[in-house]
Amino acid sequence: MSAPLLSPSRRLRRTPFSDGVEAAGVKAYTVYNHMLLPTVFRSVEEDYRHLKEAVQIWDVACERQVELRGPDAGRLMQMLTPRDLTRTMRGQCLYVPIVDGTGGMLNDPVAVKLAEDRWWISIADSDLLYWVNGVAHGWRLDVMVDEPDVSPLAIQGPKADDLMARVFGEEVRDIRFFRFGHFEFQGRDLAVARSGYSKQGGFEIYVEGADLAMPLWNALMEAGADLDVRAGCPNLIERVEGGLLSYGNDMTDDNTPHECGLGRFCNTASAIGCIGRDALLRVAKEGPVQQIRAIAIDGPPVGLCDRWWPVRAGGDVVGRVSSAAWSPDFGTNVAIGMVRMTHWDAGTTLEVETPDGVRQAEVQAGFWA
Amino acid sequence: MSAPLLSPSRRLRRTPFSDGVEAAGVKAYTVYNHMLLPTVFRSVEEDYRHLKEAVQIWDVACERQVELRGPDAGRLMQMLTPRDLTRTMRGQCLYVPIVDGTGGMLNDPVAVKLAEDRWWISIADSDLLYWVNGVAHGWRLDVMVDEPDVSPLAIQGPKADDLMARVFGEEVRDIRFFRFGHFEFQGRDLAVARSGYSKQGGFEIYVEGADLAMPLWNALMEAGADLDVRAGCPNLIERVEGGLLSYGNDMTDDNTPHECGLGRFCNTASAIGCIGRDALLRVAKEGPVQQIRAIAIDGPPVGLCDRWWPVRAGGDVVGRVSSAAWSPDFGTNVAIGMVRMTHWDAGTTLEVETPDGVRQAEVQAGFWA
Repeated sequence: MSAPLLSPSRRLRRTPFSDGVEAAGVKAYTVYNHMLLPTVFRSVEEDYRHLKEAVQIWDVACERQVELRGPDAGRLMQMLTPRDLTRTMRGQCLYVPIVDGTGGMLNDPVAVKLAEDRWWISIADSDLLYWVNGVAHGWRLDVMVDEPDVSPLAIQGPKADDLMARVFGEEVRDIRFFRFGHFEFQGRDLAVARSGYSKQGGFEIYVEGADLAMPLWNALMEAGADLDVRAGCPNLIERVEGGLLSYGNDMTDDNTPHECGLGRFCNTASAIGCIGRDALLRVAKEGPVQQIRAIAIDGPPVGLCDRWWPVRAGGDVVGRVSSAAWSPDFGTNVAIGMVRMTHWDAGTTLEVETPDGVRQAEVQAGFWA
Repeated sequence: MSAPLLSPSRRLRRTPFSDGVEAAGVKAYTVYNHMLLPTVFRSVEEDYRHLKEAVQIWDVACERQVELRGPDAGRLMQMLTPRDLTRTMRGQCLYVPIVDGTGGMLNDPVAVKLAEDRWWISIADSDLLYWVNGVAHGWRLDVMVDEPDVSPLAIQGPKADDLMARVFGEEVRDIRFFRFGHFEFQGRDLAVARSGYSKQGGFEIYVEGADLAMPLWNALMEAGADLDVRAGCPNLIERVEGGLLSYGNDMTDDNTPHECGLGRFCNTASAIGCIGRDALLRVAKEGPVQQIRAIAIDGPPVGLCDRWWPVRAGGDVVGRVSSAAWSPDFGTNVAIGMVRMTHWDAGTTLEVETPDGVRQAEVQAGFWA
C-alpha cells in the first residue's frame, strides 16, 4: 500500500519548527498528539543510514508536555505510575509507564523532574492531559495541570555531541544519560537532556517559547554544516532494530506494562499511591501471559505494517506483529510483536500473516541494536 | 500549500469500513481520534455538489464511543456537561459541550441515552475516555467506562431517507431529528439516529461489531446504485457554510462553550453537579468577550487554512479565522472565526491575514446554510 495524502487543517497542529521542516524538504508526516510529526525526508532507508553516521535535527514538538505544578505535584506524579519515584532527583529524566485503575497502559512518557513541586511529562501519542486533569480534579489535589509552550527538539546521531557543543558549549558533553542541565541560548535558559527516541545517542532540548524555535533550528543547522547535519525524524527501521516501543503501535490500554516488557519500571511493592498498583500486583507476581518480543521475519522486505499482523503457530493465533521494517544492516525483516508465553522463547518458529502472504518468522533473544 | 503524504502505521487505526473506503478510491485522509477519516474522494468541490444532490455513505468510525454503564452513569454524564440532562429520555441524542473545571471545552460530542444506566458519548477529536475515566476514578463512581466496538456510519444527503428505507424498512423515515430507534440488519439490532455532520439531512448508524461493517456498507451501496450513492465524508465547504464547528479547528480547551456560541446548550443554573459549572456561572451572566462568527472573506478562493489566520481591524488583532473554504453556492469564501466583542457585530469590516495576503472580510449575521 502506498502512502495516501494528508489533508492539512488547523486541528493537525503545525509546530514551531514546521517552517524549518518544510524548507528541509519533508516528504511525509504522521499525526501525533494532534500535531504534525515528520516521517520521511529523503527516504526511510537514506534517513536511516544518515542517522547512524552523522547527526540529525528532529522536530519532536509533538512530544507535548503535561506540566504538574504545586504542593501535590509529586503525589500526583506517583499516582500516575507504578515506578517508584521516591528517590528521583531534580535534574533526572525517567521513563515511566502510566497506567489506569486496571493496570492498562495510558502512555509511556519520559517524566522530567524540574523541582520538588514541578514536573514535566513528555508524552507519547494520547491525551494524557485529560487523564491527569481528571485524576487531579477527582482527588481534589492542590496542583496545576497544563500544557505549557514547550516544544522538544531532538539532536540524534553519533555526531550529536560535537554539534551541541558548538551551540551550547563544551559542558553539554558532561550531561549523563537521562539527566538534564540548564543551558543558555540567546539569553534564555533551556533544559537540555541526554535522551531521545533512537539508539544513536544524542539530546533533547526542551524549547520553552515558540519564538525561540526557528532561531535555534537555524543556529544548529549553521553550526553543523560541515558535520553533514540534516533534518531528520524518528526512523522506523532504527527504532524497531533497537526495540523502542511506540504507544498506539506496539501497545494500547489493553496491555499492562509487564506485557510490554516494562516490568523493570514497575515497583509494585513500593510505588505507594499508584492508581493501578492493586491491579498490577498479581501480574507482577505471576507474570504476564503474553509479552513483547523481537521477531525476525524471513524473506524479502515486507510492506508497511498499518494493522496488526496475526502471528500463528500450527494454525492457532499466538500473537501479533505491530511494527516491522526491512533492516539493511541486519539483512532481515525486523519486527516488534506480542507473543503468548507458549511461543515466546527465543528460537521459536512462527508464521506471520503479512499483506504479501504468510512468512516464516523466529522469536529473537533480544532486539538487534 | 499542497497536501503532503501520510505515513500509514498501526497507530493511525484503520476502521471496519476502510476496505470499502479504499475500494471507492479515497484520495486523502485526516487523522481523528487516532483513526483514519477520509477527506476527499473525487475532489472537495465535486464531493460537495454530490452531497447536496444525492446521498453519500460516510465512514465516521472515528467518532469513537465512550460508554458509561452502571448505577452512577447518569450522575457522571451530568458531571461532564453544563447541559441539563434531567429530562433527557431514552432514545434521545443530545449535543453536549464537555468542560473541565475551568469551563474549557474538552470535546463537543453527541450523547446517546440508551438506558437510565447506560450512555454512549460519540466523541469529537480528543481522548475524552481519559478525562471521563479520571473523573470516575477520582470520584469513586460506580460506573464502567470503556470504548466499545461501535463504529458509526453516516448516510447523508437529500436521498438519505430513500436509501435507508430500502435497507432498514419504511419505519426509518419516522425517526425524528436527534432521536434514535432500534433497527435490524442481518439479525442484529442497531441504533439508528437521525443526525450527522452535515446540513443535508440523514442518519448515523451505530454499527456494533466490526464484523457487520462491510456487509452493511455493501448492502447500502447495492441498494442505492440507482440513487447515485457514493462514498463520501464530512465536507469542508458544506460544514463551514452550515456553521458546523470542529473541535481542535474552531475551538480548543482554551475556549468556553459561550465563546463557541454554544451558550444555549449550557444550563448553568440547573445543571447541578457539572464540574465546570462554577467557572461558567459568571460567563453565563456577563457573556463572553469573544465569540465564534461567520466571516465572509473577499476575493478569489483562499488556500487551505492549516493554522490560525489573524484577524485585524485598524492594525489591532481582534480575532482569528480557524476554518475557511471557497463556496461555489454562495460565491464567496466562507469562514469560521473567533472575534472580539468590539468587532463581532454583523457588517463589521475586518482584515484577514491569509497565506495569499491580507483580504477584506465582513462579519455575517449568521452562517450561510
